[in-house]
Order: sequence, then C-alpha cells, then structure tokens
Amino acid sequence: MASVKRIGIITSGGDAGGLNAVIKGVAKEAYAHGIESVIIPNGYAGLYNLVDMSEVVVLNEERVGRIDASLAGSEAGHSRVKISKIADVNRYEKIKEGLKKFGIEALIISGGDDTGSVVVDLGTQGIPCIHVPKTMDLDLQPYSVGGDSAINRIAEFARDLKTTGMSHNRIMIIEVFGRYVGHTAFRGGVGAEADCILIPEIPVDFDIVYEHIKSVYCARVERSDVKAGTYTIVVAEGIKTAGGEMLYDESAGVDAFGHKKLAGAGKYVRQQVEKRMKADPYVKDFMKKVGMYVPGVYEIPEVREISPSHLVRSGQTFAYDVNFGYRAGAAAVALLLEGKSGNTVVDVSGKEIFYVPTPEAIKRREVDTSEVALFESLGTCFGRKPAKFEHVFVEVKGLIKRYC
Amino acid sequence: MASVKRIGIITSGGDAGGLNAVIKGVAKEAYAHGIESVIIPNGYAGLYNLVDMSEVVVLNEERVGRIDASLAGSEAGHSRVKISKIADVNRYEKIKEGLKKFGIEALIISGGDDTGSVVVDLGTQGIPCIHVPKTMDLDLQPYSVGGDSAINRIAEFARDLKTTGMSHNRIMIIEVFGRYVGHTAFRGGVGAEADCILIPEIPVDFDIVYEHIKSVYCARVERSDVKAGTYTIVVAEGIKTAGGEMLYDESAGVDAFGHKKLAGAGKYVRQQVEKRMKADPYVKDFMKKVGMYVPGVYEIPEVREISPSHLVRSGQTFAYDVNFGYRAGAAAVALLLEGKSGNTVVDVSGKEIFYVPTPEAIKRREVDTSEVALFESLGTCFGRKPAKFEHVFVEVKGLIKRYC
Amino acid sequence: MASVKRIGIITSGGDAGGLNAVIKGVAKEAYAHGIESVIIPNGYAGLYNLVDMSEVVVLNEERVGRIDASLAGSEAGHSRVKISKIADVNRYEKIKEGLKKFGIEALIISGGDDTGSVVVDLGTQGIPCIHVPKTMDLDLQPYSVGGDSAINRIAEFARDLKTTGMSHNRIMIIEVFGRYVGHTAFRGGVGAEADCILIPEIPVDFDIVYEHIKSVYCARVERSDVKAGTYTIVVAEGIKTAGGEMLYDESAGVDAFGHKKLAGAGKYVRQQVEKRMKADPYVKDFMKKVGMYVPGVYEIPEVREISPSHLVRSGQTFAYDVNFGYRAGAAAVALLLEGKSGNTVVDVSGKEIFYVPTPEAIKRREVDTSEVALFESLGTCFGRKPAKFEHVFVEVKGLIKRYC
Amino acid sequence: MASVKRIGIITSGGDAGGLNAVIKGVAKEAYAHGIESVIIPNGYAGLYNLVDMSEVVVLNEERVGRIDASLAGSEAGHSRVKISKIADVNRYEKIKEGLKKFGIEALIISGGDDTGSVVVDLGTQGIPCIHVPKTMDLDLQPYSVGGDSAINRIAEFARDLKTTGMSHNRIMIIEVFGRYVGHTAFRGGVGAEADCILIPEIPVDFDIVYEHIKSVYCARVERSDVKAGTYTIVVAEGIKTAGGEMLYDESAGVDAFGHKKLAGAGKYVRQQVEKRMKADPYVKDFMKKVGMYVPGVYEIPEVREISPSHLVRSGQTFAYDVNFGYRAGAAAVALLLEGKSGNTVVDVSGKEIFYVPTPEAIKRREVDTSEVALFESLGTCFGRKPAKFEHVFVEVKGLIKRYC
Repeated sequence: MASVKRIGIITSGGDAGGLNAVIKGVAKEAYAHGIESVIIPNGYAGLYNLVDMSEVVVLNEERVGRIDASLAGSEAGHSRVKISKIADVNRYEKIKEGLKKFGIEALIISGGDDTGSVVVDLGTQGIPCIHVPKTMDLDLQPYSVGGDSAINRIAEFARDLKTTGMSHNRIMIIEVFGRYVGHTAFRGGVGAEADCILIPEIPVDFDIVYEHIKSVYCARVERSDVKAGTYTIVVAEGIKTAGGEMLYDESAGVDAFGHKKLAGAGKYVRQQVEKRMKADPYVKDFMKKVGMYVPGVYEIPEVREISPSHLVRSGQTFAYDVNFGYRAGAAAVALLLEGKSGNTVVDVSGKEIFYVPTPEAIKRREVDTSEVALFESLGTCFGRKPAKFEHVFVEVKGLIKRYC
Repeated sequence: MASVKRIGIITSGGDAGGLNAVIKGVAKEAYAHGIESVIIPNGYAGLYNLVDMSEVVVLNEERVGRIDASLAGSEAGHSRVKISKIADVNRYEKIKEGLKKFGIEALIISGGDDTGSVVVDLGTQGIPCIHVPKTMDLDLQPYSVGGDSAINRIAEFARDLKTTGMSHNRIMIIEVFGRYVGHTAFRGGVGAEADCILIPEIPVDFDIVYEHIKSVYCARVERSDVKAGTYTIVVAEGIKTAGGEMLYDESAGVDAFGHKKLAGAGKYVRQQVEKRMKADPYVKDFMKKVGMYVPGVYEIPEVREISPSHLVRSGQTFAYDVNFGYRAGAAAVALLLEGKSGNTVVDVSGKEIFYVPTPEAIKRREVDTSEVALFESLGTCFGRKPAKFEHVFVEVKGLIKRYC
Repeated sequence: MASVKRIGIITSGGDAGGLNAVIKGVAKEAYAHGIESVIIPNGYAGLYNLVDMSEVVVLNEERVGRIDASLAGSEAGHSRVKISKIADVNRYEKIKEGLKKFGIEALIISGGDDTGSVVVDLGTQGIPCIHVPKTMDLDLQPYSVGGDSAINRIAEFARDLKTTGMSHNRIMIIEVFGRYVGHTAFRGGVGAEADCILIPEIPVDFDIVYEHIKSVYCARVERSDVKAGTYTIVVAEGIKTAGGEMLYDESAGVDAFGHKKLAGAGKYVRQQVEKRMKADPYVKDFMKKVGMYVPGVYEIPEVREISPSHLVRSGQTFAYDVNFGYRAGAAAVALLLEGKSGNTVVDVSGKEIFYVPTPEAIKRREVDTSEVALFESLGTCFGRKPAKFEHVFVEVKGLIKRYC
Repeated sequence: MASVKRIGIITSGGDAGGLNAVIKGVAKEAYAHGIESVIIPNGYAGLYNLVDMSEVVVLNEERVGRIDASLAGSEAGHSRVKISKIADVNRYEKIKEGLKKFGIEALIISGGDDTGSVVVDLGTQGIPCIHVPKTMDLDLQPYSVGGDSAINRIAEFARDLKTTGMSHNRIMIIEVFGRYVGHTAFRGGVGAEADCILIPEIPVDFDIVYEHIKSVYCARVERSDVKAGTYTIVVAEGIKTAGGEMLYDESAGVDAFGHKKLAGAGKYVRQQVEKRMKADPYVKDFMKKVGMYVPGVYEIPEVREISPSHLVRSGQTFAYDVNFGYRAGAAAVALLLEGKSGNTVVDVSGKEIFYVPTPEAIKRREVDTSEVALFESLGTCFGRKPAKFEHVFVEVKGLIKRYC
C-alpha cells in the first residue's frame, strides 16, 4: 500500500464524542506520509452520491486546523443511511465510480457494527478499508470512540437531577441510549451513584426494584431531619422484563385493532413503580409518617422520567476520547499502509498498535455480569436478586496495562 | 414585629436554582437579629401536616453550614400541594395549630404565583408573611430566583445539541418549561443563538417558520464545504398556533371516543416541519444538490425534538441567583421586622430594599414583544412576520441601575 | 448618518466574554440597514496599521456565521496598545488614512475606560464613534459585557477549590482580576459563599481577617465529626491595607538597592495570615485539639493562594453576556444611525435604547459599600469591622425593571 | 483475616478525584461482610494522634450516604505529614496504641508512593494493610484514582485559555503538577490539542520549541483573515533542560549570596521564549506583516503563563474515577479478607481482582516515549527533535481488555 496517494474518511452511524480527533489523527498521520486525505461527507449518503459531487474537501493543514477535536460529533458528518438499505443494485459500482472520480484509493471508516459488513464488502470490491470503532453504546468488542464521553455526560445529568429529586422527594428515572447493551447505563449510573441501574443484560424483576426503592428511599427520607430523599434509576433503552413481556404503555389503552402501545423504557419503569406504590398500603403510612400526606392531593411519592436523549452524545468530548481518537486515527493509517485492510483498530499503547479483523470487532459485547455482582454487593439494585460476587485474585506480573 | 422570636421558612411549587441562598439569607439575617428560623419541610404539604410533626429543624450556624447555596433545589423541600386544593375546610386552623405548636410567629415563603394568595390568606389569619419571588419561568412581575440559572442551562443544552445537529444536518427542537410565558425560552434561546424561538406570547405561524428554515438551513448546508448545517429551534411548552388550534398529535389518530390526542410543543413543532418538508419538492432538490439524497432511505432532512425537562432546573446554581437569593432572603427578614407582611421582595441595591404588595407581584408578566422585534431585525425567527424594531432613545442621567 | 455605507468594528483592551455577541449584533443590525461592517483586527494595533493592510474582512452572513457568540474573547482580536502610548505624532492622521483607504466611515468600539478618550478624540477628528462598554472588571458606569461571565467563573473556581480546602483543612485564597475595583471579587465571592472577600474599596485590616478566620474556621473543624473544614478568601488584585502600606513580599528580602519587592495580593494575604498563625499560641492548641498537630512537621494549618488568572475571562460566555452583547451591538448601530456619536450604549429594554455620553460612562464605578454591609450582617468578612446595614425601604410602583 | 471486626480508612498525601468513591467502596463492601469501617481523619497526622482522640467516625449507612463520590478530595482528609518525617522514635508504638484503643485491626490506605513504605512498615508491626493507589500524577505502576479527573480538567483549562490566546495572539503556557513525570501533562495536553507538551521524561531543547512556535504560530496568524492565532504549551512542573541546567529565573538577578533564584516551569518557559523572540529579527517582520507592530509598544507577541494549580485536582470527579474508586475500595476489602496484606489493588475487571505487592506498585512509572513519537508524527512538539514512531503491529486474540 506504500503507493496510496489519497484516502477518504467516512464517519457512519450516529454522532459521538472523539470522531473529530479520529479525523484529525488520520489527516495528520496521512500527511506525515505524504498522503492526501479527503472528507466524504455525510456518511454513506455521501459515499453513495460521491460520483455526483463536484469536489471534495482536502484535509490540508489549514482545513484540519479548523476542526476542534474536543467538540462532539463529526466534521465529516453522519447519516442514518446503511449501504444494505439502498435499493440500487449497482450501489457498489456507483460508489467505486465516485471513489475513482476523486482518485480515492482507500477508505478509513469510523462507525459501529453496521460499518463492519461494509468494510468487508468494500474490501471484496478491491477498496482497501480500515475500521475505527465508534459507538457511544460500546457494544463492539474493542473500546470505541465516544464511550467515555457518553458515560461522563450520563453521570453528570443523573447527578444533577438529584437536586430536583431531593427537593421533591421524587423517584427519578433517567433513560439513556445503549441499544441492546447496558455499558453506558452501567458506568454512567455508577458514576452518578444511581441506586438502581437497569440494563438489557439483566431482565428486570420490578418487584425486586420496588422492594429496593422502599427500603432505600423510605429510610433515606425518614432519617433526614428535613424529611428529604430521592432515589435514582438509570435505565438503558433496551431493557427486557424478567417475564419476557414487551414494554407496554399501561396508560395508553389499545388502538383500533386492539393492539397495545409500547412505552419507552423510562416511562415503563415509572408505570411499574407507580402501580406498585398505589397498591401498597405501606406507602400511605410512610407518607403520613414523614408529613407528606395530603388526602386526594399527595398520596404517593412522585416519580418522574427524563430522557436526556441526544444531550448525552453532544457538546464536549472528554480527554480520553480525544486521546483515543488521535491514536486510533493515526493507527488506522499505519494499518492501511501495512496492507491490513479489513481490520479494526483496537488501540495504541507505547509502540504497539493493536488490531483485530473487523468481523471479530463487530461482534456484540455485553456487560460482564460478574462485575455487576460487585456493585450489587455494594448495595446497588440491578433489577434481580443480587448475585454473589464470585471473584478470583490475580497477581499481575510485568508491566501493568492501564488505560492512561 | 420587633418581638418575633421564631420564623418559619417554606419553599413552595417547583424547584429552582437559588432557593438555598434564600434559605441561608433568611437564616443568617435572622440570627443577626437574635431570631430563630426553622424549616417547614416539603412546602405546603409540610405546613399542613406541621401539627403532627414531632420536631422541626432549627437553622443554627452548624445546620446552615451544611446547606450549599450553589446547589439547585431547596433544602426545605417542595411539594406540588396547593393550599387551595386541600379539601379540608379547617386547613387554615390546622396550619395555625401547627405554627403555634412550634412557636412559629411568622413565615417567609419563597414561591411563584400560587404562593401569592396563600401569603394574603395567612396574613388575614394573623400570620405575618413575606414572599420571596421564585419561579424559573420568570412569570412574576419581579425577577425571581432561579431564572438566570434556568436560562444558562437552556442556553448550554441548546448549544451542545448543535454538535449533533451539525453532524447529521438535523433541525433540532428543544422544548423547555415556561408555562404561559416565554422568558427563559427567549433568553436561553438567544444565549444559544437559536435560529428560531417560539414563545406563548407570539402565536406561531408554521408557514413562516418553515420558510425561515428553508432560507437559513439550506443556505448553510449548501455553502458548507463539507455540506454540514443545522437549525436550532427553542420552543416554550405553552405555545399557541396562529390559527388558535390545540397542539394535536398528528401521528396519534383518535381515541375510542374520536378525540384527538394532544402533543407536547416539541413534538408538535416537529410534525409541522416534517409535514411541510415532505410536501415540498424543493426539499428533494436540495437533498440531491448537497449529496444527501438516497431514495427510500433519506429523502428529507431529519428533525429531532429533545426535552431537557428537569435538567434545566437542577444541578448547579449560577452566581446571579446565589447573590440574588442571599439578598432577597435577608431583605425578607428586614421587611418582616418592619411589619410589612403581605409584601414581596423585589431586590436590594445598595442600601435600598425594594418591595411590592404580593398581589401586584404575582400578576403574570409576559415577554415584551418590542424587544423581540430587535432580535427579529438580527435575523431570528419568532414564528411571525418580523415586526419593525420601533425603538426610542433614552439618555440616562444620574447613577445607572445595573444588574450587578 | 443615514448615508453611512461601511462601519468598522474594534475591540480594545483585554478579552472578555460576550464580545463576539457584540460583533455579531453590530454586523447583523448593520446589514438589516444595508450597511457593511468590517473587522479592524487586533484592537488599536490594527487601527494604527490599517493603512498598510491589503484587505479587511467584511462581515457578511457567511463570515458572521463562523463566529460563536458563546465563546469568550473576540473574533476581532485585542491588543494592549493604547492610542495615547503610540509615540507617532501623526497617529490620528495615519488612522484616518487607513479608514479612508477602506471606505470606513464610522466606528463601533467595544472596550473599557481607555477606549473612552479615543472615542472622543476620533469624534473630534470627524470619525463618528459609538462605544459599547466592555470590561470584565465592571469599573465603568454601565454594565459592561463580560462581567457576568467573569463572576460566574470566579464563583465556580472558588467553589471547586473547597474540595481541596476541606480535604487538607486549608485556608484557600483565590486572587482575581479587577484593577481598582472589587465588583467581580464581590459578586463572584458571594456566588461561591466565600468566608472573606477583600476588595480595593475597603482597606484591609488583617487583624480583623485573622480573628474571623479563627472564629469561623476553627469552629468548623472542631464541630466536624471527621475534623474537616476550610475557609475561603476571594481577594481582588488591587486591595490596599488599612495602614496604607504597599503589598510588600515578606519572604523576598530586599534587592541590591535595599528596595522591598512587592507581592501579588494573594501572596500578601497568605503571608499576613501565616504570620499571625505562627505567632498565636491558640493555633497550636487548636491543632492539638483536633488531632492535626505533629511537632516540626505540621504545626499550623496550611494556607494556599491560587490565581486562576486568565481562566476567569476565557472559555465559555454565559447567557446574560450573549444576550447583552447582541442587544448592545444592535443598539450601537441604531445610535450611530441616529447621529449620536460620542455616546456609550447602556442597554436595551423593551423598545428603549439607553445611552450616556462616553465621558460619563467611563468614570470609575466602585462597589457600593452599603450593600457590602448587608453581607457583613450575614457573616461574611470584608476586612473591616462590620458596618451596620443601614437600609431604606422603597415600594416599587409601575413596571418593575429587572435584568432579564 | 475472616475474623476482622473493624478496619480503618486513611487517605494520605495530596487530594485527588475519586477518593470518596474509594472510601464508600471500602465501607459498603465492609458492611456487606459484617465489618465496621471507621475514618482515621487527616491522613498520617490523624493516625499519629489517634490515641489522643475521643472518638472515631463509624461509616454506617447513614454516614456513608452523606459522602458524595463525585466530589473531589477526601472525606477522610489529608495531610502532608509523612510517617518518616515524624521525629518521635516511638511513632509506630503510638500508632499501634491508637489503633488498639479503637479496636481497629487492619488498615486500608489510599495514597501515593510515600504510602508504600508505610504499608510495609505497618505490616511488619503486625497491622494488616492494603494499599489503594492514589496519585493525580499517575507516577505509580498501576492506574491511580484521580488521574483521569486531573487529565480532564487540565484539558478543559488549556482549551478554555485558547479564547484568550486567540484574542490577543498570545503564546499561552499552562503549568501543571506531575512531580517527576509527565502523564497528566501529556494526556491533558493532547486532550486540549496543545501545540507543545513539555514533560520531565524529555529534556527540553528550547531552540526546537522556539522554531516550532515560529513555524506553527506565525503561519496560523498569517493565514487567518482576521490575523488571529495562538499557540498552546502545556508544561509539567518537573521539566529539565536539554543542557541539564536548573530552571533559573532570568528576571530575578542574584540574592545577597550571589545565588540565582529558581523559576517555576511556566515562568522559565516564558522567559526562554521571550528571550528568543526579542533577539530574532524575523519576529519584527512578522509583526509588521500581520499589522500588529507598534514601535515601542508592541514589538513581539505576548507570552503568558498560567498555573491552574489546585484547580486541576479539585471540584468534580469524572465518571471513570468514581467507577474505579468503587471497584478499588471493594477490592481492597476482598484482598484484606483474603489475607493479602502488603499488596496494592490494581483493578477489578469482570470477576478478576488484580493486585501487586506494594513495593512493586510504588516504583516510579514514566511516560512511554515510544507513544510520544506517535504524537510527534502528528505535529506536536515535545521539545526535542521528533523521533520516528517505531511501531509494531499486534493482532489481539480472545477477549479484548478495555478500560470500560
């Protein structure tokens, strides 16, 4: 690959922190090798339409200097377009024509699991591709740019909401992204010291959640001299119930065809908690004991759900993702020049560039529930009967790997 | 009132920044005068149930020291209980018994418009009351603690979301609180340089909004070398349409009785924008021109609505509200000692303590649309045909009043 | 002035939050009137060298769109160059030539007190000028863009440092800008609930400061179950001592000529506190009582001074300054078109544009010490024997002026 | 160790983020095992004086609930007291008496390298000890609580200062902690995209730094349409010069004994840069070319140094440190119960608890300069002639270790 003259950069899927560092890492490492890099705008939409564009942006020193690596999102843009969803059977031909038109000989693509098959497909079509893992959900095998930033923001928002919770003695439910996994809910929830963290990896038994609320929240309010307390639940959007039901919206009734409507995870959790509170005579006694009870007006504690939604992936990128992004972008260029198309960057540490074949990289990674048990031993509820933390001790020999 | 020995502090309504400064201002000024202050917990719920409590918290130096004035919410707690909603006809008797039980001779109540009538009623019942204005909506006549903090947070969130908007070329809609007025949407929107700000004071003509989007957003994407652009709408929850319709959810169909369902303001705005985009052939041309168009997959720009919800009132309190809260709390004690029950603190400046009768204070204050016209002249859309900024010039003589 | 075709924008003096909003306000209001605005870069350095430049930047829609109003500092740049310091006797001629070269018929200058004389001088030379007040020190008569942002950041930093103070039981001293006045130290200090705030308006009696430390700090540590406490001092750089001495560095000895060296305000305060602690046997007893005393190693509490320095004027601009900046920039254009050269914008409220003659605007404004007395009654030390808060009550009639 | 009934928690050395999570992790894991944990206040000062205290704080559920894990610093307090510095020859006897008095059978100590010898010594004296690594400098072998938070804050401050730098076209120097190593300067500097990062591991050649400034900074200002540019240097306090000189303050002259005074790293760097600028005729030409030059007033660009100092270790703790702190605290209890006194927690991942003998853990860890070369290839200056990034490729097999 020593002869490559121009590479294209694509960011695909959803936005996340650190992508601008990836782009800058690629561009700067590329021109250290005398290679030009260009932006293919707006993800796969731009890749598909490339042939019809009149020009592409070359990332020279001046242009790169206008990108801020600590700003979330991507200068290259994203779109929700998946190559597999494009009906056009000649889509790969069209893509190849576009690349040819602008003399783009290879691609570096930063994206999540959908990106994987594209990397493989394009490779098959003779377009060398390197994959830089990006997903704020952290559902790929390697660390993916954007994860730490999402975790920090989830933690910050969940923590902030405690002032509202404490003032109103509310159960606060924060619903966050994560698709089929709970990494960011887990780490972000711990970062905010949530009382309860609900993740897709552990089907939720709401009776257990409710009992935990009662014992933790009620004790908190009762022992407070000003009768104040809150309880924080961080819930990942993809949770399942212990009984295997869908998350039906209990307030919505049925539609014209008799179908129940689905609720978002936050709303569903709220309904489950409220339902149990209304039915439980203990709650009224508690309300009376702490002086909150007013008949007909205030009979059970309030429960509120909040979805910070895109706020957790926007704004500022944290230092780890900027560092990782730069390293990963530079490593992608190195891998490309080494002829290692079809691989995914894992990380750089010291002088070692770690990588895996892309099909391995994009296999779904779930939260290790062994570690969840550690936090259960510390009192956090995960919607199941707490498991024992079955640990083993490992003495580390030689240089200790660490994240920074 | 020189003989008062113990005063009670109540915070009512919703939480907001700066209330802890009010509480500390009251407590510290009180003990400077040898008066004890106590917390009546959880708003009017606690006031109503006071007689049944076994003790109240006295705000001595140690206890006050454990309150952080820069943390949002209230150490005294809130509840959504309104005195007027309590069915008990003897409610004022019960309240008076509670106050008597603990030797509380006067009250300082920080709250919004609902608080006003209570202040008057309790005064009629012989309980001296001073009102400190609190509402993150800023719908009272005087400045109210919590407003600046809410504005700063709205601005921050709306600004943060631009990274997501820019990455995906999305129209971003941020729905915020405000009830019947648009103060915080207006100031927060300007603080984030929103392209469009929709407030209850100006009925929204969505055709005008849509034309503004087209001219501003499309031009932005087109002139960007990487074909990136976004458009930010900050919308207050209480908006009305120019045609006077309710905000019906167009995706929801009708219920069993044929009734349409209402949508939140953010969702409604999204539907109005999407509907026009789908129907407008210009949009498809635009999508093609900038290389975003993929048939069947990506035919119009994405529109997303986000509700930061309680996040805008939680977390950190900004410096202005801490300063104002302290001043207002101290002033409330001074007014009480002067025998000015039934009044609302306006502010302290230099040695002057400003106040108004509470019934005056709680009259709804709306956004001055003259000033809106200034921002229309600068290019911001407010959902109407821009008005001319009809200004007058005023030379200031003497000491200039300023906010800090 | 209706015929003006092109105006120049200058930002002079030091950087501050909100200037970019001023620039955008000017530019957008200008093109609403069909007037072009251009940036004269780098303050008076650029104005002086304008005639030698090959081009200036016109603030059209695209260029304005690349300025972020919520980013501190100025897109137009600053320099420490004062016109009065330029030795060239033909400096005004040279400036006029530069303006003529680029067809700039009028100027809008945002700056502090030095700016004032320039505005007057240029007016005398036939160049219409409007002044927009800018100073993070708030030492002009009107509110000046940058003040609120500086206050918020001072408050944030002083508050953050409490975690270090609490962990080490330290007296923490935060030195901030302010030149001859204490506005931002005062408001920022209150915003962080500093225990002691030292400002130039009140000559500092360090014996009083020291006694306050002893009574507040020692009590705090003693009553803490984990023997933890801190004490926060916010000090403005321009403080004077009660005795009228210079702030000599007591650790520095004298130079070759026998001259003492001056210390910064923070260092000076530290030395005064440490000196008294070392000499006071009470302190050793206190250290023993709370279990901190270790002979020869830890005999008095630690005192640390920190200078956040430029951090308080950099980074993010808060919402008030963005709002004010936009209003002020637009108002400057309106004043210019009205022929009101030589005036300073005060603010816009509703449809009223307030202004004062620039020579009035730039008179130094000090902190109103009547209001300081209010905070003394609440327990804050200002380095003097607390004054009585001699307040008067004023009932407000008509529309209440408020800051937002 | 299964019989231990009460353990003591000590935090020693300087404050850092995440320690409160460590304390809570210890306390919660302890009471999961029916063990009481108590705080020994103020580090080794408190340990030494323990025998004279009347009581210690037991960390029951209520008391633990009042600790906020996301607040930096330590609820247990710190002191700069080192056991080795205490003159008392019976110090260990006294410590043992104190522990005995309160029934404390084992210790968990979170601290840096000084802590190590104490852990070993106390073990020798029959007091079981586990060490949790804490140092914001990251100079121990394992990751240490506080590192990520310090890096994030350094990055944030360095980034914020760019607005000041850009406005005044200044060279900005940010001096940060780090003692003998440059981990946080490195990672924080990259996080802020500093142009130059100076660390103790790489002796600084200031001629190289100066040439880098000239080529990067001058080009930036020249190509800016508004003639704006800045250059950011992050410098660790412990840097050395390539020539092996001490960091002498060139502005300070000599003292009465002819000794030169030392400068802090930031000041020293500033002097080196300014000296070269003044002597270099190119700089005057540059100043003229960009319109900044004013004779006698403004002849070279300004250089400013800022020391955020304790601000980088105070305030908020980021999510990674809260997560790590909780895991590490819990693991410390597990190691203690397993009888592994004299060891240091490395981390927990899944069900594996990693540890090393404390003497291994506290060996100084320096920045891997191989990885520095990666960033040199991307254009960052490290004060030396850029080294080639000599990388090796490693395909990862099996489960990928990742930081979260």
